Parts: sequence; C-alpha cells; structure tokens
Amino acid sequence: MTAAKGFTAAGVAAGIKDSGGLDLALVVNAGPRRAAAGVFTSNRVKAAPVLWSEQVLKGGQVGAVVLNSGGANACTGPEGFQDTHATAEAAALALEDSAGEIAVASTGLIGTRLPMDRLLPGVAEAAGQLSPHGGEKAAIAIKTTDTVHKTAVHEGDGWTVGGMAKGAGMLAPGLATMLVVLTTDADLEAPVLDRALRESTRTTFDRVDSDGCMSTNDTVLLLASGASQAVPDEAEFTEGVRAVCADLAQQLVRDAEGASKDIRIEVVGAASEEDAVLAGRSVARNNLLKCAVHGEDPNWGRVLSAIGTTDAVFDPDRLNVAINGVWVCKNGAVGEDRDKVDMRYREVAITADLAAGSSSAVIWTNDLTADYVHENSAYSS
Amino acid sequence: MTAAKGFTAAGVAAGIKDSGGLDLALVVNAGPRRAAAGVFTSNRVKAAPVLWSEQVLKGGQVGAVVLNSGGANACTGPEGFQDTHATAEAAALALEDSAGEIAVASTGLIGTRLPMDRLLPGVAEAAGQLSPHGGEKAAIAIKTTDTVHKTAVHEGDGWTVGGMAKGAGMLAPGLATMLVVLTTDADLEAPVLDRALRESTRTTFDRVDSDGCMSTNDTVLLLASGASQAVPDEAEFTEGVRAVCADLAQQLVRDAEGASKDIRIEVVGAASEEDAVLAGRSVARNNLLKCAVHGEDPNWGRVLSAIGTTDAVFDPDRLNVAINGVWVCKNGAVGEDRDKVDMRYREVAITADLAAGSSSAVIWTNDLTADYVHENSAYSS
Repeated sequence: MTAAKGFTAAGVAAGIKDSGGLDLALVVNAGPRRAAAGVFTSNRVKAAPVLWSEQVLKGGQVGAVVLNSGGANACTGPEGFQDTHATAEAAALALEDSAGEIAVASTGLIGTRLPMDRLLPGVAEAAGQLSPHGGEKAAIAIKTTDTVHKTAVHEGDGWTVGGMAKGAGMLAPGLATMLVVLTTDADLEAPVLDRALRESTRTTFDRVDSDGCMSTNDTVLLLASGASQAVPDEAEFTEGVRAVCADLAQQLVRDAEGASKDIRIEVVGAASEEDAVLAGRSVARNNLLKCAVHGEDPNWGRVLSAIGTTDAVFDPDRLNVAINGVWVCKNGAVGEDRDKVDMRYREVAITADLAAGSSSAVIWTNDLTADYVHENSAYSS
Repeated sequence: MTAAKGFTAAGVAAGIKDSGGLDLALVVNAGPRRAAAGVFTSNRVKAAPVLWSEQVLKGGQVGAVVLNSGGANACTGPEGFQDTHATAEAAALALEDSAGEIAVASTGLIGTRLPMDRLLPGVAEAAGQLSPHGGEKAAIAIKTTDTVHKTAVHEGDGWTVGGMAKGAGMLAPGLATMLVVLTTDADLEAPVLDRALRESTRTTFDRVDSDGCMSTNDTVLLLASGASQAVPDEAEFTEGVRAVCADLAQQLVRDAEGASKDIRIEVVGAASEEDAVLAGRSVARNNLLKCAVHGEDPNWGRVLSAIGTTDAVFDPDRLNVAINGVWVCKNGAVGEDRDKVDMRYREVAITADLAAGSSSAVIWTNDLTADYVHENSAYSS
C-alpha cells in the first residue's frame, strides 16, 4: 500500500485484541493531493465507522484512515458512533489534521463496544510510527480470522496503485467488501477515482460470494496523493485499479474460512450480465453444491436446481454444465461421463451455459466444510 | 395415511435402491369419490414426475399415486419423462385404471435414469400387496436420507385427514415441498381441496427452510375418497389439513440432515406478512448464524446483518432480537446480558422485532453442522 508515493502507514498492538497481536492500522496521505473515493456495504444495518466514513467521503478528500480489528463497532447504537467520532478526533490531534477528513474502518465481532481506553492511545502510538515502509504492518493489523495478510501492487506508466485487504468470513459483498484500502500516487481528482473504483469493485469484490453473508462493515477506499505528478488516462488507470482489486479479491477467496476449494462459477450464454450474475450467485450460495465440491463429487444436478430458483432467462431443456472442462450436463440432461471429472485440485471451475444469449459473468465462492462450521460456531465465544 | 377410509397402500422393495430396502410406494383411492389437489415445486427445473403429475392434477381427479425413492428422475430429458409415463401406464394396467389419473412422484439423486427394468415389476408387486393397513410401509418406502418415516393424522367430526412425508435435505420448499401425500375420507370436491391445500402449505411446508436449497421434485398431493360421507365445513376442514401439514413439517425439521438444533425464527412487528417471511427467510439462510446456533452461541449480530440484506420495512436503530426469551439486542444495540441465554436444548427460539407494524411469521430452519457437510459431500458418490 505504501508502494504508491506520498503514503505512510503503521500497524500497532493497541490491546484491542485479547491475543496481543497488531490490531490498529493508520494510513496517511501526505499529498500534495488528498483526493479519495469509497464504496461501502449495501447492508442496511451499517456499522458506526461505515456511517462516519460515508459522510467523510462525500467531501471527496481523505487525509488519513484509521482501521482496527478486534471489534466491528456495529450494532452499538449512538455510543458506538461517538466512539468512531472520538477515533477520528484522536487521529486529527496526532496528525494535526481535520477529523472531517479522516476515515475510520473497523472489523471483528458485531454488537460489542470497542475498548476506547486502549484504542485511543493506540492511534497516537501509530501516528508516531508512520513510515513509508509501514504498509505490511498495517495489512497485518487489520486481520481477523485471515490466516495471511493481503497486499497487491500495480505499476502503471509513472504511477502506481497499491492496496491491502482483510476478509475471510461474512464474505458476500453487496456494493463493496470487507476492509480494503487502495492508494495511488496518480494525480487524479475525486470524481475520476470514484468512477474507477466503482467500475473495478463491480466486477471483482462484488463477484466474490464465499458464504452468502453480507457484512455490516464492508469498506473499500481509494486514496490519491498525486505525488507521482503523473496523470494517467482514465481507462488505463481504471484497469490498474481493477487489477489490484481482482488480485486482492482472489487472495480473499483463497483464504476463506475453513475452505478447501476455490470455486470459479462462470455463467455463459446469458441473456444479460444481470442474469449471469443472478444465476452464478444462486449456484455460489447453494450449500448442497458447496458440500458436493468439498467431497470432490461432480454433482451437476445441484447446479441446475440452484439455477432453477432464479428468474434468469433460460429453458431447462437447454441448460449445459461443465465441471473442470467436462460437459457433464447437456440440454438439461445427462452429458459426458461424470467419472472423467478430476476435482483433486484446490481450484474447481464450473461453467453453466444458459443458452439464452451472449452475456457472461464469473462469481467466486468456496466449498462448505466442517472446518467452516467449527470456526464459525465458536467465533464469538 | 390409510387412517382415512377408502384408501389402501403398499410399500415394496423393487430394487431401485442399492440397499435393498423398501423403495416403491403405491397409494390407491377406492372412492367413491376420487377428487384431488396438488402443489408442486416452484423450481423452474422440474423433475419428470412433477411435469407429469401437474398435468394429471389439472383434471382434479387422482385414482392412485406411485412414489419411488432411490432416484429423482430429474434432469433426465425426454427419456426420463417417458419413464414416468411408463410408470403410470404400469400402475393403470395393474389397477385397471386410466394412466391419466395416476400421479407419480420420485425422490433421490438428480441426473440419473431410473432402473425401469426393476421399477415396473415393483409397481405390479405393490398393486398385489395393497392393504388398508399399508400406510406405514408406504411411508417407509419413500425415505431417502430420512432417519425415520413420517406420518400424521387429524380426526375431524366424522372425517379424517391422514398423511405421509419424506424429506431431510434440499429442504427449502417454494410452493410445496418434498414428497407428501395427504388423504381424507371427507366428501369434498377438487376446488375445495385445492383451496384447503394451498392455504395449509403456505404457512407450514413453505415456512420450513432447512438448508436454503429448493428441490426439483417437491410434491404435495391431497386425495379425497368421500368414503366417510361427511361433508365438513371448509374452514374446519382446512384447519384439519393445516394441522397435518404442520405436524409433518415439524417432523421434517426434526429429521433434517446432520442437524442438531431446530431453530424457530419468529419475526414480529413487521409491516406486512411478506416482510416477516422475507426477513425470517434471510435469517434462516444465514450460514454464519446457523453455525453460531450449532455452537450454542447467542450471536445476535448475525441476525441483524441478515435482516439488513432485505428490503423489508425497518429502521436499524429500532430492531430488537430475543434468543430463547432473552432480549439480547434492543434498539439495534446491545440489550440484556447474552450470558443469560440457555441454548442447551434442541429447539432454539429466535424472535426478531422489526418495530414497523403488527404482522408476523414463523420460519423454521436447522443449524449448520459438520455432519451436514459430511452427509452432503458424499451423497451421490
């Protein structure tokens, strides 16, 4: 994330997590520009930091982002919102900035207040440790059940896009996803950043549906420092942002809670892109299919029964399904021999042909495993 | 099911299941009346027996029902439909009836043809074993992953409603569910049966959502023999049908694949019944909540985040949630102490108050367990 010029970052152990690990990150845009864009969860139950940061982003300027793991600050009422406000004020004080241009993001358990007596000193400590090499520590500090930290970089012509992400469960973004901070040293204004970010998240994070559960805290921010003085072409810049988003989205899928398989569901032959996404998401959320993939069982009937619950345009007698390249279902009935399907590897590719048009979309999900159940039956205890 | 006068039934081992267990059931209405109504899956990918029986039911008359486990005959193309037709013809021959008034239902794996060389002789064998005491054997013959067979009886004033059901997985009915045959000796015509059946299934089977996966084969039939010569009041009769449906629906939930908890989700204070069902179903399908309940963890934040994905009428700051009677969330934030919640028993009651009106609905689901994953990752192999 600090690969882009003009950014410093830090990650500290403020004591929010019982484990004593890094749990508070600070990212600062040193300019000269401080343009920013953000997309947030479409869940109507929004965490306090989402409500705060949505307001901050309306101004199109962000000087710094404070992120914490160890608590989502969601469903915490007016007191929780005051906690977020106090966090921004503490950062403003330490950075000699304005709280109104400081975004806040939180992740962890829903429904508990944050330990502000530890969080606020942590903000001051992080401000004292800011470094142009602090990106990795910041990425580590936002982990919850993530087993690895996630960063990505795209080098453009004289400009750079960097980013970090966290997310392993409650992973089915609506408009955005999890906590992601992207930085660039390109010299672009907020409206360009906003268009590039929305176009990029639409086909990357928004098409990850690991467990069908949309978070209350999903946040993706894109900050531009202008420090490279490069003004890239918008299409080229958007492609750079998209590449970093796609890379981070893949890292999220690969680290999903308890998963043993990454499932790429490509819907082709759809009457519209919306239909392709609808059918793909229905397949991605089908627990029986996810169990079958876990058992390396090419149970294509579960793909058809999932598609059958949608109102996408298709004729049941024309549906085709391939698993890892073998067309096990043709024209809605038995196709090639299912014993030809090799599902030993982590990535499993399912192609569903709706035979109704020429649009397509790819949705990523994971298998459903006993480890997922175990991890999520004990998480808050 | 044979508790209602005028009905005979049989269950035989035709050799469709590899296990050698009972796998073919026959239910015959000896009259004098043979009125019938049916509701079927709203999945657009429909099994051959569903397509066949929908046509049969249009006439409002059913003389017999052939049901098999060991294969769903879904996604089997025109050949699969011919197999269903041949099954009805075989029953017509054995019973000296018309194939056009014989309904067929199948359950088991999607995407494989039925072994007709064994199924058709089984139909003849079952016809030879019909008995007014054959209801239990028929109920056993339609089991798949069910651990117990399921029957229920309601005694009215001079009339009776009986029924049998199977279903343990792919349990999220759209318009109907699983395989259910209801019988009555009441002397009622098809339109009355149809109204009573739709009203009954709407608030019973349709509100079970064990695993979010809608079947291709869901079928509920109600057959009336008129043998009691009683003509019950329609409201009273409907209540009797509803009682049998509710009883069978509860048996399905209690026997759901791998489940260790039955979760009763009651949404109250909704602006409409539709909103209550929408919010309840979203909670029922939230894998993270289902894992939490499995772990006996009163993780109410997952209830709120599930409700937040719907467009039901509510204000996030007014939502209240109780788990087993303890209001752990009040006004969208922390309520009573979550340590007061006792979740040791199989039934767990979640009440979500949308604080937006006076409508309510109850949805039943199950927890998500490692046993569910295990059972469904190996089912077709």
